[in-house]
Amino acid sequence: MTALDLIPRDDRGLLLGDGLFETMLAVDGVIAHLAAHLDRMAAGCLSLGLAFDRDAAEQAARTAVPAQGRFAVRLTLTAGSGGRGLDRPEASALRLFATAAPSTAPAGPAALIVASTRRNEGSPAARLKTLSYLDNVLARGEARVGGADEAVMLNNRGEVACAAAANLFWLAEGRLFTPRLECGVLAGITRGRLLAQERVEEVAAGLDALERAEAVVLTNSLIGVRPVSRLGDRVLPEHPLAERLSAMLAR
Amino acid sequence: MTALDLIPRDDRGLLLGDGLFETMLAVDGVIAHLAAHLDRMAAGCLSLGLAFDRDAAEQAARTAVPAQGRFAVRLTLTAGSGGRGLDRPEASALRLFATAAPSTAPAGPAALIVASTRRNEGSPAARLKTLSYLDNVLARGEARVGGADEAVMLNNRGEVACAAAANLFWLAEGRLFTPRLECGVLAGITRGRLLAQERVEEVAAGLDALERAEAVVLTNSLIGVRPVSRLGDRVLPEHPLAERLSAMLAR
Repeated sequence: MTALDLIPRDDRGLLLGDGLFETMLAVDGVIAHLAAHLDRMAAGCLSLGLAFDRDAAEQAARTAVPAQGRFAVRLTLTAGSGGRGLDRPEASALRLFATAAPSTAPAGPAALIVASTRRNEGSPAARLKTLSYLDNVLARGEARVGGADEAVMLNNRGEVACAAAANLFWLAEGRLFTPRLECGVLAGITRGRLLAQERVEEVAAGLDALERAEAVVLTNSLIGVRPVSRLGDRVLPEHPLAERLSAMLAR
Repeated sequence: MTALDLIPRDDRGLLLGDGLFETMLAVDGVIAHLAAHLDRMAAGCLSLGLAFDRDAAEQAARTAVPAQGRFAVRLTLTAGSGGRGLDRPEASALRLFATAAPSTAPAGPAALIVASTRRNEGSPAARLKTLSYLDNVLARGEARVGGADEAVMLNNRGEVACAAAANLFWLAEGRLFTPRLECGVLAGITRGRLLAQERVEEVAAGLDALERAEAVVLTNSLIGVRPVSRLGDRVLPEHPLAERLSAMLAR
């Protein structure tokens, strides 16, 4: 490990979770939907009051990607060093770095539990991929303890928001649904692509809506669309929804 | 800066806000209420599923404190390196370090605004001092933009929770109140000391209760008890409450 792989202890991303990240899929040297990821990070910076150097971010991401193979590329942006306590320093130099880790597509459908850890619908951070991701870590931990792959997170009003690291879509009576961003939902890139291509109703819905669904899928940039085979105790029968949405995205 | 002042980029505290911290007051080499702070970090580790080496934490904190002067000592514990995405690795070595920064007592009373950023009462993390502190950073930022010192944070039910980096107490009709932990409140060390020494009612109360108060104070380990002189547009007249509570803590 070189000095370039280390960061100082006074980094606000480390000390306070003050920053953002993106997780992107790269296959054989090409990052999928890089522009959309950079757009989202730019919007997140605007929301958090951080300056964003898009060119530097793009450069860092591209440089991190190996020429061959399937990789998860993570772009991390911190608010930089310094500031006493919560207050940011007057002038801060953001810290930016990208890493790539080998990534395999998930094998088969996912089993979900419903987490007790809630989404904070009352914070703008709930709609961003921030370095304050502990609630997501806790929800995923609940899933693992329950022998599941992922956790459904509700917000404090009891509305379905998303999974710990994925967006949720479900089919009921021929209609496709996904939670509204206002429910405390990350504006997923794959979510956005589906909304642009397919008739999807963005709703504030309780857990009962999900429990009555004919089919449920998870989406994110690494897995694309993944079918859900179990929600709590309920087994969901096989359904062509995931395959249909995957085919649409591949077009 | 030496290698000891650097941490690796794969640290989960940095990447995901997966960890805890304590902020303590040290005067002339002595850390105030160190045992209580270590107890709280131990309880936080239990809640987050992290192992805690109390002796190592105590040693790190004590070593960081200069022999003379008033310092804010920060003890930081991260979930350590590794894990793909949200999942923690099977065996993780936690990372622990302490730093000290000169600290002056705040000059005079505080002006408060009410933040739009809410506390997540539905997460155990809202009751802990975690490395996912972005909501607090955002609330404090709102205070600064509004020309104030601190921000009152409400939870998603609209109940008063705490300030961005302090607990809240208020006096109304001769009775002293503070929000219940269930409102999404950090279990402050100074808060706990006041509850042990004084009759305080722990309540779930709306903003109107705070707005009608005769006196409001902030408490934390660095400031002790600080009077509030303004809440939004309302000016609070001088009141002996802060002085009385400070004197009680000093006994």
